[in-house]
Amino acid sequence: MTDTVLTYLQDHHDRFVQELTSWLRIPSVSTFAEQAQEVRRAAAWAQEKLVAIGFPTVETIATAGHPLVYAEWLSHPDQPTLLVYGHYDVQPAEPLDEWLSPPFEPAIRDDNLYARGAVDDKGQVMLVLAALEAWSRTLGGLPINVKVLLEGEEETGGEAIEAYVRANPVRLEADAALICDTHMLSERQPLLITGLRGVLYTEIAMHGAQRDLHSGSFGGVAPNPVHALCVLIDRLKGADGVIHIPELLAALAPPPEAEKRFWEEDPLHLEELLRREMGVDELVGDAAYPPLERIWARPTLEVHGIRGGFTGQGAKTVIPAEALAKVSLRLPAGLQPDEVFAWFETAVRRHTPAGHRVEVTRLNAGEGLLVSPDNPFIRAAASALEATYGVEPAFMREGGSIPVAALFDQVLQLPVVLMGFGLPDDGPHAPNEKFSLAQFARGMATVADFLGRLQRG
Amino acid sequence: MTDTVLTYLQDHHDRFVQELTSWLRIPSVSTFAEQAQEVRRAAAWAQEKLVAIGFPTVETIATAGHPLVYAEWLSHPDQPTLLVYGHYDVQPAEPLDEWLSPPFEPAIRDDNLYARGAVDDKGQVMLVLAALEAWSRTLGGLPINVKVLLEGEEETGGEAIEAYVRANPVRLEADAALICDTHMLSERQPLLITGLRGVLYTEIAMHGAQRDLHSGSFGGVAPNPVHALCVLIDRLKGADGVIHIPELLAALAPPPEAEKRFWEEDPLHLEELLRREMGVDELVGDAAYPPLERIWARPTLEVHGIRGGFTGQGAKTVIPAEALAKVSLRLPAGLQPDEVFAWFETAVRRHTPAGHRVEVTRLNAGEGLLVSPDNPFIRAAASALEATYGVEPAFMREGGSIPVAALFDQVLQLPVVLMGFGLPDDGPHAPNEKFSLAQFARGMATVADFLGRLQRG
Repeated sequence: MTDTVLTYLQDHHDRFVQELTSWLRIPSVSTFAEQAQEVRRAAAWAQEKLVAIGFPTVETIATAGHPLVYAEWLSHPDQPTLLVYGHYDVQPAEPLDEWLSPPFEPAIRDDNLYARGAVDDKGQVMLVLAALEAWSRTLGGLPINVKVLLEGEEETGGEAIEAYVRANPVRLEADAALICDTHMLSERQPLLITGLRGVLYTEIAMHGAQRDLHSGSFGGVAPNPVHALCVLIDRLKGADGVIHIPELLAALAPPPEAEKRFWEEDPLHLEELLRREMGVDELVGDAAYPPLERIWARPTLEVHGIRGGFTGQGAKTVIPAEALAKVSLRLPAGLQPDEVFAWFETAVRRHTPAGHRVEVTRLNAGEGLLVSPDNPFIRAAASALEATYGVEPAFMREGGSIPVAALFDQVLQLPVVLMGFGLPDDGPHAPNEKFSLAQFARGMATVADFLGRLQRG
Repeated sequence: MTDTVLTYLQDHHDRFVQELTSWLRIPSVSTFAEQAQEVRRAAAWAQEKLVAIGFPTVETIATAGHPLVYAEWLSHPDQPTLLVYGHYDVQPAEPLDEWLSPPFEPAIRDDNLYARGAVDDKGQVMLVLAALEAWSRTLGGLPINVKVLLEGEEETGGEAIEAYVRANPVRLEADAALICDTHMLSERQPLLITGLRGVLYTEIAMHGAQRDLHSGSFGGVAPNPVHALCVLIDRLKGADGVIHIPELLAALAPPPEAEKRFWEEDPLHLEELLRREMGVDELVGDAAYPPLERIWARPTLEVHGIRGGFTGQGAKTVIPAEALAKVSLRLPAGLQPDEVFAWFETAVRRHTPAGHRVEVTRLNAGEGLLVSPDNPFIRAAASALEATYGVEPAFMREGGSIPVAALFDQVLQLPVVLMGFGLPDDGPHAPNEKFSLAQFARGMATVADFLGRLQRG
């Protein structure tokens, strides 16, 4: 049966690429209020596609923010139910001038599809939709029961989906969840993710004098919010990578011995891979922990952006009245973002230099996750990956955050299969984001195979 | 004779305001290359005005940068020669949305003229030109010999004028220089400036990985140039205001006892004035020195602007590949900018966190100055101020930098009369820069009187 499905996927590969291309043309940047119309267009695209696949129930669910797209096809009372998640919103594309082709005009170069959202996450949602279509067209239906839930706020906080999941646990009942929004180690080494970090994203605004000042007349006695923000950020995390939020460090649970050994020994030579992907000679960060532990199981504090005063061409001797920074923390599983935000805010106030006024805003947050590799859905996914790639997948954590995975775990109590087909150099949040078309094809095949393996008896 | 001149000034006050307004309409922002045409227009305006006043020799001198405007009227072999300096370029007007009326559409509110350049320096050049015109029209000539040298690069470094002065010391020979580019203590308390700080303006570029990175996948091992720049800036100057460039601190000469006493006692209650102008409750900076010493006679290190990564609306979890800051140092008289730049660059390299690459660029520089209050030109200026304002001027230093003043002192060996008519709340480099029209009128009268007092026998 699966062979027919796989043949269908091969026969229709080019059309699937075309369909993905049309979806990628829609600039569904969820963080920009003025793009809300485009985000809705991307949702409508997904809704039409689900109808075309044959889902008998397809809905666009209005929320306080961007809509959810929900579909269900429940025709097998004796078969398990899989909840498929994905997101149709994308990161901002800035800086635009670093793109070799425009971010919303998908271009193929060297068998890679370049566009904002190519791998994160439209491309990976599309490969699941293709697998579902292939089963639907060849079998006349799906091998198991499937619920699909797509959101449009993954890149900005996912508040709508969180509210919906919490309010509709019965409707979303399932036996497992599938999320394709991660990457593999290389195109030869597939991966199943056993842990994710949570995230807490904040904005810090620093204020000084009531107006911009001339540095000649006031330099030496004037508050300087840019300087104060630099001092604050240095005090929150030193150059040695140590975060100065004592409550946060005290709340960390010790990791399992087996993982600790893996991090220390680095048998897959991932540190070298990290250096190569970043184009750097040395890794930075807290040397008290191995690099793999630092990216997977330790908290981070990163400044994503900073702005203040005059940064144009030439010289302007101003002492500005305000400055702003975006700062996030990544949180290993077990840490509650609410609690961490309170600790963070306390630390920010404590470390703000005298003579300045600080404001901290929480922009979004989500918890981390740990998945047990020992359940039948994870095992089925491992078999499907091995069937496609010819090697067993590695079981590893990921440093990124998929708050909805934690939500499925905690609210719906589902095992979450985190099976992604991105490659490490896809640059999901950077200019020239891409998705390998070979990975796109293998991803479809793997998901189709996975669906077949879940069928009982 | 002076009475006739003063009457002329009163009779033509409104026209002088109109003329100044037409000059202020020209956005001669010298730091923006694309405004070069406007800077030339502002120079042409000054040239025409000097011709109209009656100067027999008026030239626009091409330079590697913006032009110089030079005029001379030397008809009295037995009279002294005054070199008048001013600048016709202005600071950038950003942030534009904070202006109550557009920066290049001069507007009068409450007897103040609001525009970029109103006080710094077009308004103060205009009052000197008005005084010269008044003498020319009433006496049929000037009471002494006058050379006028106006530049268009004061706000960006003044490289052209420096080259010109160094190359033409004979042409610029004079007995004293007059610079109207400073402010008074209040509209009742005039001021003669006895010291200026030099300046060294730099740009620091920090580089990390070869591309923007996702903070989930790389946070914990990735270089973060925004963070590194914050660490560097904190290390260069702490929250306590102490600058960590040991060579710089070691090179400072101890100030005269009389000035030290003035700074400590603050008899004119200037600290309260500083707090009020900034709208703050407390002064910041190195508490080991009195605030007046800190703004007049101590070096500063200020960040004027910083930029890096994502600072738009919402959240983007990027680790950027680069970040930039503008940093200047103010230098008490006696420090050589070249030498200080070498020390600064060494400190920047020493304090840059591992794993990052830093570039330091010197944008512009000028030396500080100390003027002896005990010479006939300073005394004539003091008498003219007292005649107009009814009180003796205070003799004080200023924290700002007028590199050309140091140049006149060192190359031409002239006593420099630094007599300004701005008010402390004029905001010369800030939005809503203004010039009091009452000060404009008193300034004309004072300069006209000053010119008369220089006439011998």
